[in-house]
Amino acid sequence: MLAFGSGELEVEAVTTCAGNQTQEKVHRNALRLLSGIGVSAIVARGANRPLMRELSTAGSVHGESGLDGVELEETTIKPSESHAVEVIADIVRSSREKVTLVPIGPLTNIALFVSMYPELKASVDSIIMMGGACRGGNVTPVAEFNIKTDPEAAEIVFSSGIPIVMCGLDVTRKALVYADDIRRIGDMGNRSAKIACQILKKYSEFYYGKTSIAGAPIHDACAVAYAIAPEMFTSLECHVDVETKGIHTDGQTVADMEGRLGKQPNARVVLDLDRERLIDMIISAVGRLE
Amino acid sequence: MLAFGSGELEVEAVTTCAGNQTQEKVHRNALRLLSGIGVSAIVARGANRPLMRELSTAGSVHGESGLDGVELEETTIKPSESHAVEVIADIVRSSREKVTLVPIGPLTNIALFVSMYPELKASVDSIIMMGGACRGGNVTPVAEFNIKTDPEAAEIVFSSGIPIVMCGLDVTRKALVYADDIRRIGDMGNRSAKIACQILKKYSEFYYGKTSIAGAPIHDACAVAYAIAPEMFTSLECHVDVETKGIHTDGQTVADMEGRLGKQPNARVVLDLDRERLIDMIISAVGRLE
Amino acid sequence: MLAFGSGELEVEAVTTCAGNQTQEKVHRNALRLLSGIGVSAIVARGANRPLMRELSTAGSVHGESGLDGVELEETTIKPSESHAVEVIADIVRSSREKVTLVPIGPLTNIALFVSMYPELKASVDSIIMMGGACRGGNVTPVAEFNIKTDPEAAEIVFSSGIPIVMCGLDVTRKALVYADDIRRIGDMGNRSAKIACQILKKYSEFYYGKTSIAGAPIHDACAVAYAIAPEMFTSLECHVDVETKGIHTDGQTVADMEGRLGKQPNARVVLDLDRERLIDMIISAVGRLE
Amino acid sequence: MLAFGSGELEVEAVTTCAGNQTQEKVHRNALRLLSGIGVSAIVARGANRPLMRELSTAGSVHGESGLDGVELEETTIKPSESHAVEVIADIVRSSREKVTLVPIGPLTNIALFVSMYPELKASVDSIIMMGGACRGGNVTPVAEFNIKTDPEAAEIVFSSGIPIVMCGLDVTRKALVYADDIRRIGDMGNRSAKIACQILKKYSEFYYGKTSIAGAPIHDACAVAYAIAPEMFTSLECHVDVETKGIHTDGQTVADMEGRLGKQPNARVVLDLDRERLIDMIISAVGRLE
Repeated sequence: MLAFGSGELEVEAVTTCAGNQTQEKVHRNALRLLSGIGVSAIVARGANRPLMRELSTAGSVHGESGLDGVELEETTIKPSESHAVEVIADIVRSSREKVTLVPIGPLTNIALFVSMYPELKASVDSIIMMGGACRGGNVTPVAEFNIKTDPEAAEIVFSSGIPIVMCGLDVTRKALVYADDIRRIGDMGNRSAKIACQILKKYSEFYYGKTSIAGAPIHDACAVAYAIAPEMFTSLECHVDVETKGIHTDGQTVADMEGRLGKQPNARVVLDLDRERLIDMIISAVGRLE
Repeated sequence: MLAFGSGELEVEAVTTCAGNQTQEKVHRNALRLLSGIGVSAIVARGANRPLMRELSTAGSVHGESGLDGVELEETTIKPSESHAVEVIADIVRSSREKVTLVPIGPLTNIALFVSMYPELKASVDSIIMMGGACRGGNVTPVAEFNIKTDPEAAEIVFSSGIPIVMCGLDVTRKALVYADDIRRIGDMGNRSAKIACQILKKYSEFYYGKTSIAGAPIHDACAVAYAIAPEMFTSLECHVDVETKGIHTDGQTVADMEGRLGKQPNARVVLDLDRERLIDMIISAVGRLE
Repeated sequence: MLAFGSGELEVEAVTTCAGNQTQEKVHRNALRLLSGIGVSAIVARGANRPLMRELSTAGSVHGESGLDGVELEETTIKPSESHAVEVIADIVRSSREKVTLVPIGPLTNIALFVSMYPELKASVDSIIMMGGACRGGNVTPVAEFNIKTDPEAAEIVFSSGIPIVMCGLDVTRKALVYADDIRRIGDMGNRSAKIACQILKKYSEFYYGKTSIAGAPIHDACAVAYAIAPEMFTSLECHVDVETKGIHTDGQTVADMEGRLGKQPNARVVLDLDRERLIDMIISAVGRLE
Repeated sequence: MLAFGSGELEVEAVTTCAGNQTQEKVHRNALRLLSGIGVSAIVARGANRPLMRELSTAGSVHGESGLDGVELEETTIKPSESHAVEVIADIVRSSREKVTLVPIGPLTNIALFVSMYPELKASVDSIIMMGGACRGGNVTPVAEFNIKTDPEAAEIVFSSGIPIVMCGLDVTRKALVYADDIRRIGDMGNRSAKIACQILKKYSEFYYGKTSIAGAPIHDACAVAYAIAPEMFTSLECHVDVETKGIHTDGQTVADMEGRLGKQPNARVVLDLDRERLIDMIISAVGRLE
């Protein structure tokens, strides 16, 4: 919604990847959501499992459907018959400007894209991703869900040479949506606002029950918001490695924030944001939709 | 040459992969060789490096060009503009019969194929591959070159569910070509025989210098020969795991030949062959070419 | 100095371990320091290298001697002829009360002790150690020096079943000694104060040059202070694992502070302290010595 | 029995280690066996578990008692009160000649010995051990029981710098005892022969049921026999690494028999033996006992 409603981004395609739920469910949710908010885009189906691991979804957070709590009609959008990776490659290949990728799930599709088409890396401006954490994970003590789901894919992406912007838990845990914010959205009254409201209400229940502060981290919006207005974020350029072989640290993103390793930075790690501005930006965007 | 000359196989396409040499060199060699022996096929360029490792070629064995010792003119074949993985997918998707894949290099392309198109796995009859070793490697004490070059790709392929026939060093080290055999080929006089002779002579030098027995293992021909006449090989069905995390065992294929692990077999490990018959088969095939 | 001067602890023995410097230098420093401050104790030599790794000292912090900047005469104390591990075992075996171990270097000796004499674990009250970090290392982005020096030893100790108090960088980085504090110590005028002053001045130079805040973390004193007055620290009981197999996370202490893993707590992780009180405690202790 | 009866070795001590069965059972068996065959020696209790792993015994092979099938009276020998490691250290320290260690179980005690007393390594002639395998394990497809039980201990021992003679499965699987051999032992009639006969009969049952050849590999005797008559064995000097981090290869001994790694040899790998001579040697030795 933020990407489409902001008016600042030209969304070339939406590609889906197994993660929060199975590929099938995630794909259906993407399609129904786009229809629901009255926009259209190329939608392409991507990987149905991580490169080397079994898929372990986040059903406990996002529900059986992957988007519980919201009533959406079946879509009228016809998805692409090409694989997500081919769709990305086609767009990057044919674009006159450099393209920005904004993955907000496991990095499987992006890893396949850079493995298949290394010659196109130079035409990607950057990968602004939601995932990882410098300090404290949400699946294990040190690993965040999107990276932990497919650590090998993450490692491929982080060592691809494409500039990475990592919107990890460090910043997304500060991107809190409070009950008041949800009320503001609800008050707008347009159809997209209603959908946003339903999603946020259901999603917040999970977090409000869990934590002492009555806010729910709206993780994925951070990556989109960074693509729109990077100046509202605080960040640090450094080298980030993905652990794929640890027993207790599998899927951890190790950010060398103090420059101990002497490696070239490969990522910009996002650490803080102007929360109020993010909320305002989301509300404006949702308001501009149907 | 064996695949095209045998008359027993319908070669749908030749796809190339970085391994013995860079993707570029391997690709050029494939094209020139096909032209040289007077055949044509779809030729498609694949991965230019392993999924997660730096490429480390086998230049010391196969020379700077990847096919040293042979004079080949530039090709007249126009390679496919599609990626090897897409070419494989198209062929498998549109074939009325199940397709057999015969990779004789690192498994990068095949791993990308199964990751991108899992729904096509059911249409692959089997993967008859050259690579791996039950006992004794050729790069490290326990790892064989093709697997060691891209162990993650190998792991993806071995756990794909597609039936694997592993023509590893156990059998290929017995597929020896002696000076007499090369002479027999040379005596045939057709152009393809001359090319085969040049390749084998140069290649043998590496081995004749190294080992006490005056024979050179013609590794890759085993996989093709197995596709033609599996009955000339001795093999064992068992479970094979690929080690990707060991310090001293990275890239090892661990074949559970005594069934200690209680896992379902995922591979047929080829252990021995009728060497004379292989040589005869090669000579016949080369003789049938231009 | 804190342990001997506080009057609160009965120091049974001092055992040394390769770490900040070689076993030999560390041992000599311990002996000369005890003589210097006018106390005596059993001093026993322990491991001269980590269990499975090469020794990598912290010479850049503590200097060539392991205790640069201080002039100490040769010792009059005769060290034990028994190995540190035997000395620890003898004391634990013959003590009527449970014994507390306070390792402030790599855990090699303690790991050997628990491996050799598991039957004595029940007679150890707790292991109050300096080492590890929940968030941010000082050797790698995630690993602290004492643990990183011998991760296998740390893993043995953390899974020994003996209650662990982990005074890691989380707390010790807050145990800052400022120039004013060093002046207060210098003003006391007794011989031990002079030695303390020399050590702290030299040691601080390393840190004052490095960080923006003009304070040097007096890491090891935290563990001793915790043994004296645990109430001046803030801590959390949780499960801590030591990573020994990660590529980028080797030697990391993974503290499950949010209870994500459902494992029984094996450690009390110390997170904060009353800095002023620590400084006062040190000054009092040094003042009580010769 | 071979060590004591051969008349060729001066057995300084017998030390026990958890492995085939718990430390307690193994220790009791050692004591009762020495009493049973009418000899005496220092017997010392060692490690009751591997350094970093849970103990997993070989009860399925050696039975509930660790020495099933033999009736032995309780011992009259009083075991040492010192730890096995201390006993080994004392003997090595006080011996005028270099001492040979002959471990036939997991290497835990030896690893602790070299970690505690590195200065004594120079006084050890060699470690002639039963364990490991160049080709094919008996616990996993690639790992042998003694090494797999405590891979970290093995790694410490193999990198200790003490010359290693590795009597692994490569040779011990050829040290077969047939029913005829057992009959020959039984025919001697002395008490020790009866005990030997009982042990071998029971032990053979496990193997005769399992394999096609009616022989049972008398693994441990190989190491002792090598200490007596190395000339009856075929061996190769090379570098051996112990894998401690592989997923599928944990506990594998990787012997670089073709010198691919360019490392200095640290072991002599025993590959074959004169089986007849071993049997004769055992029979003679048993005959010389009570």
